[in-house]
Amino acid sequence: MSSSILVVGSVAFDSVRTPFGEAEDVLGGSATYFSVSASFFSNVRVVAVVGSDFSDDHASIFKRHNIDTSGLVRADGRTFRWKGEYGFDLNEAHTLDTQLNVFESFRPDLPDSYRDAEYVFLGNIDPELQAEVLDQVRQPRVVACDTMNFWIDGKLDALRKTLRRVDILVINDGETRMLGGEANLVQAANKIRAMGPRVLIVKRGEYGVLMFGEESVFAAPAFPLEEVFDPTGAGDSFAGGFMGHLAASESMDDATFRRAIVYGSVMASFNVEEFSLKGLSKLTKTDIEGRFRQFQKLTHFDAL
Amino acid sequence: MSSSILVVGSVAFDSVRTPFGEAEDVLGGSATYFSVSASFFSNVRVVAVVGSDFSDDHASIFKRHNIDTSGLVRADGRTFRWKGEYGFDLNEAHTLDTQLNVFESFRPDLPDSYRDAEYVFLGNIDPELQAEVLDQVRQPRVVACDTMNFWIDGKLDALRKTLRRVDILVINDGETRMLGGEANLVQAANKIRAMGPRVLIVKRGEYGVLMFGEESVFAAPAFPLEEVFDPTGAGDSFAGGFMGHLAASESMDDATFRRAIVYGSVMASFNVEEFSLKGLSKLTKTDIEGRFRQFQKLTHFDAL
Repeated sequence: MSSSILVVGSVAFDSVRTPFGEAEDVLGGSATYFSVSASFFSNVRVVAVVGSDFSDDHASIFKRHNIDTSGLVRADGRTFRWKGEYGFDLNEAHTLDTQLNVFESFRPDLPDSYRDAEYVFLGNIDPELQAEVLDQVRQPRVVACDTMNFWIDGKLDALRKTLRRVDILVINDGETRMLGGEANLVQAANKIRAMGPRVLIVKRGEYGVLMFGEESVFAAPAFPLEEVFDPTGAGDSFAGGFMGHLAASESMDDATFRRAIVYGSVMASFNVEEFSLKGLSKLTKTDIEGRFRQFQKLTHFDAL
Repeated sequence: MSSSILVVGSVAFDSVRTPFGEAEDVLGGSATYFSVSASFFSNVRVVAVVGSDFSDDHASIFKRHNIDTSGLVRADGRTFRWKGEYGFDLNEAHTLDTQLNVFESFRPDLPDSYRDAEYVFLGNIDPELQAEVLDQVRQPRVVACDTMNFWIDGKLDALRKTLRRVDILVINDGETRMLGGEANLVQAANKIRAMGPRVLIVKRGEYGVLMFGEESVFAAPAFPLEEVFDPTGAGDSFAGGFMGHLAASESMDDATFRRAIVYGSVMASFNVEEFSLKGLSKLTKTDIEGRFRQFQKLTHFDAL
């Protein structure tokens, strides 16, 4: 665990209803899911803002996973809140309410100890803030980035500027088609890769992940689970496992990227089995390696 | 090419409109796509009905692929016609018109030379007709079957009777949830496998295939294509490649099933690249093996 990952994103209180139950004001947010997931592979430093309603109890999950919270700012006001609902089709969240709260005036200011970060993950926040974070990192080796339809629609110029500085973009298939301006996913991916990122990772929910890389295209399925309780955070858990493995292996070849995709898929599969961070926080290295082997069995075939 | 496959299904004239072009009254139908696809792997005998508008020219594609048409009945009237449309989301066909024509009074009567068939594929027709075909096959070794929401909704009792005699069911994910009565795919698959088929293959369009087998679950992606012109017949081309490989290898172990799934996916990927049967009919063994290797590259990853 030599290399360290810097993540900027949201720490939130989520209220989530699914056909299988509900949870109110539970810890969530892209930076939270990402950090906890990545912490099983690498050191993690988090940049985010929380309100005065964020207690030591809430902070304990970061401590327990040795996540550096020097960059977790506590501001006056309430923590970011998201309220959402999933139907039986667990692929799509329906947002019922979003309260930005302290997030509204958040301007990331990195502690000195963060500025030498080699691996950077820009969670799904305003692309201008993503760029500001990058400005403060001296010499990033790998920059990965998430975004969403809201920014593609409303801040395309800023997003395009950020993308020029990004190595790996991690978005879903709808966003890929929207950003690439093509109905065909392969053509959309080609267009996006011409905008800056040399690797595009397309998240397809229960259908898995497609990576359009420099050397090849790689497809990984999602793990077929008998119980999916809460898809919230699946994408960020995926990104955490993916970046975690990249940082831990300190390699950037095609085989490492593929393996990182599978570790990301492993983490996402554990995450959706429980509400909030329960699925991730109780994991052991043995659980993770066990499911990695199950992914091998799930996808393996031989030529005659 | 020792073993022979018997297929019953439709031979149709399709009129198809996609965002990329249109075709009118072109040869199609489940039995046609299946036969041509399977013919690259095994001998095929087709059972279907056509009308007096079915010319020698239409028949030539069966001849060219050495498909046995002794069971292709020519009746008075017009051939079955389907008219459909696809939007940019090529996963779903919108049916504009269906004319059963000679198919309406079709009762399959197998030629003697067909009755020793070891491999049987029951295309998507009335489950009572599927059962009648099975009644006429002396000792089938492997019976695979397709069906659709129309029969699940309208002829569930007959379908359940047929399923008790089926080894492999090949349906899409919506049909899996509908027939299994569960929103969760794994749970739906378990319920369906308790109805008879020991293997359930779930087709997921551009997302690939999931196989719930006796020994394991296997996931295969669809091949990411830069040009998809016409998804018509993708499912039947898949089934043809799948059954074709099963029959050719005369084995039924888990590794053979997985390989057969990939050959099916290979054939489906070629099929959707062109209108009607153009994509399939011009293929060579070299093309097929080449794309099989591309599937290996697409899905391969190693543990550390």
